[in-house]
Amino acid sequence: MADLREMGRRASKEKQLLQRMPAEEKNRALCLAAERLEDRSEEILCANDRDMEKARQNGMSQGLQDRLKLTRERIGAMAEGLCQIAELPDCIGEIMEAFERPNGLKIEKVRVPMGVIGIIYEARPNVTADAFGLCFKTGNAVILKGGSDALESNKAVVKVIRDALQECGISGDVIQLIEDTDRKVTVEFMKLKEYVDLLIPRGSAGLIQSVIENSTIPVIETGTGNCHVYVDKDADLDMAVEIIYNAKTQRIGVCNACESLVIHRDVRDSLLPRLKKSLDVRRVELRGDERVREILTDIAAATEEDYGREYLDYILSLKTVDTAEEAIDHINRYNTKHSECIVTKNVETAEKFLNEVDAACVYWNASTRFTDGFEFGFGAEIGISTQKLHARGPMGLKELTSYKYLVRGTGQVRT
Amino acid sequence: MADLREMGRRASKEKQLLQRMPAEEKNRALCLAAERLEDRSEEILCANDRDMEKARQNGMSQGLQDRLKLTRERIGAMAEGLCQIAELPDCIGEIMEAFERPNGLKIEKVRVPMGVIGIIYEARPNVTADAFGLCFKTGNAVILKGGSDALESNKAVVKVIRDALQECGISGDVIQLIEDTDRKVTVEFMKLKEYVDLLIPRGSAGLIQSVIENSTIPVIETGTGNCHVYVDKDADLDMAVEIIYNAKTQRIGVCNACESLVIHRDVRDSLLPRLKKSLDVRRVELRGDERVREILTDIAAATEEDYGREYLDYILSLKTVDTAEEAIDHINRYNTKHSECIVTKNVETAEKFLNEVDAACVYWNASTRFTDGFEFGFGAEIGISTQKLHARGPMGLKELTSYKYLVRGTGQVRT
Repeated sequence: MADLREMGRRASKEKQLLQRMPAEEKNRALCLAAERLEDRSEEILCANDRDMEKARQNGMSQGLQDRLKLTRERIGAMAEGLCQIAELPDCIGEIMEAFERPNGLKIEKVRVPMGVIGIIYEARPNVTADAFGLCFKTGNAVILKGGSDALESNKAVVKVIRDALQECGISGDVIQLIEDTDRKVTVEFMKLKEYVDLLIPRGSAGLIQSVIENSTIPVIETGTGNCHVYVDKDADLDMAVEIIYNAKTQRIGVCNACESLVIHRDVRDSLLPRLKKSLDVRRVELRGDERVREILTDIAAATEEDYGREYLDYILSLKTVDTAEEAIDHINRYNTKHSECIVTKNVETAEKFLNEVDAACVYWNASTRFTDGFEFGFGAEIGISTQKLHARGPMGLKELTSYKYLVRGTGQVRT
Repeated sequence: MADLREMGRRASKEKQLLQRMPAEEKNRALCLAAERLEDRSEEILCANDRDMEKARQNGMSQGLQDRLKLTRERIGAMAEGLCQIAELPDCIGEIMEAFERPNGLKIEKVRVPMGVIGIIYEARPNVTADAFGLCFKTGNAVILKGGSDALESNKAVVKVIRDALQECGISGDVIQLIEDTDRKVTVEFMKLKEYVDLLIPRGSAGLIQSVIENSTIPVIETGTGNCHVYVDKDADLDMAVEIIYNAKTQRIGVCNACESLVIHRDVRDSLLPRLKKSLDVRRVELRGDERVREILTDIAAATEEDYGREYLDYILSLKTVDTAEEAIDHINRYNTKHSECIVTKNVETAEKFLNEVDAACVYWNASTRFTDGFEFGFGAEIGISTQKLHARGPMGLKELTSYKYLVRGTGQVRT
């Protein structure tokens, strides 16, 4: 804990300077960090090799090994990411509102950094550079706790970035990495409220749950997506098949992929055979309710548990409903408030669905896969928030900021 | 826990209806609730008598008894509060942003209610009506846990409001009161994450600390204010004395009262005698550092602990500094990020202070007592946030809302 507090103190010390740092200075540092990541990629790859060697010895799954593995190309992508962040506009100092009170007080609401942001993530070394870039651009110091399987890679990436910052005359303490892999230290980090203003977990549902249960620091919950597509009785069925195919199979391991279909009984007979043919191409396993299985006789039954699951796999559950209301109720019961879609030509039904489904992003005739900071045009993304406090849906740079009120008077006192 | 979950389920059930409830319907219900509070004040006063009787038997302090006590006049003020909330504009449904992407997707960011809000507070029955009014106006269901010493009063107020809602054809479940006074139940309430979207503690530092430590629901931290006034070398000393007198003595038990002074050495000799004369009128006890005590020889020494304390009393600590920078550092070290003030005629020093002091509200030549939703013109206030996530400073109606993205397409899929 003593070490953690020392890290917190160091990060806090940089807050004031970071808050006033001119955009050009931040952008120059981001670009130099990008350049140095490429210059020193050999060093990073060597460190990554050590992580990979240990991962193989420990029998890490192929999927996780793939996320841990760095290549010259992937380091290039990390560098490119930092350059892109440098090109985005700086929102710090923006006057969000300005008003004058009858007593003459002039009040300005000004955008400021959060201060110190903590990021807890899994064994994905690319998150290290990405999280630094987003936090630094918005004037925040960052303390990182990455998955212990990626420790050597993360240490190497952080060292290169810190050196680059120092080349620019900026303290390396604006990015710090917790190197202690003891789980107790991670839990203590979640309670470092005196120094850390915001904690963002990025990773599996288990990681996020642990942060929510243990943290005394304000948290933004990201990630879990049990997303639905509802095919209404008035749907264009060609469009429905295309949207479902895209939302389910374009990338299966992501939070905005479709996990469950809700189908109006009137389109059941014509939709299901075409849909099955389309999804068979990617060998998607279907699990349906009784009415679905009257048409698709050889698929498994969907249980209650299926409706609540984020498969992150080539599996899709199907539910038949009698009305759009029933579809909305079903979705509001099982969803994780992430992304939901209706396919219909009926404006009224669409507007009802848009308004009544409780989710960060509700789509009418478009794939749920668009829930993404880049697809929304934010130019960056730290994650997808599934909570309602502070930020909802794709989080870009502005979502890493707070505000303060500046009040200018001429001696006013309260009576 | 079973009962709490049932309350959560009931509140959730009302969310959808509440979200779409027209402004007029909400306002009519608020006005009728106000009317019924006055009509049935006898019933509420009887219940309050039972609480007061128990409080006296338990030896409750006079100060707490005063906050618990209801009178016909105080019930009138509660009713008047609800009427005022009814008159405020409805922000639900407001389109906060609208943009179109190159692929033709039309994205709207729309203001929506949080959903279900939990409020945990102390034995102040007026908070019951107030919290209901603010949550209901913003389309939120509310679950209240008030101090157990006010249980009978709260039950009576909630009953009157529920009856009024039912008169309007609205389910009483939009306001529910936890009647179980077992502390364990309160802690379980803080973990009712499945049903409660936001938890707001209102009350003492101890209450807030307990919520932060136990809650798995997102929390907005409110309240604690160790506020400073810094008198710069270029200050108008008459103005300084007036602002300090106001910020310290206008109301002592509030979070935006001044608790500590920071004084530039150059104004020490001329300011301190005048200041003491002014504060002596209200018998304010001064505690100073060594340099202050060279001038005010009969006051006590200020310790480190003094600088960190929110007295909420007629006590004021004083610290001498050599520069404005030193004042800023001192304040950033000891403050609770609530409200801070500089008195100076020097624009440059003022702007430096405004930008570099880390607090929700930073004042130039005005009393810290203005940090208040009504004084800011919000027309309402649920509390003063001292955290940086979601809301900072005075929280009005908008701070009780979230948003969602509505995305309208024509069959777009992601490539």
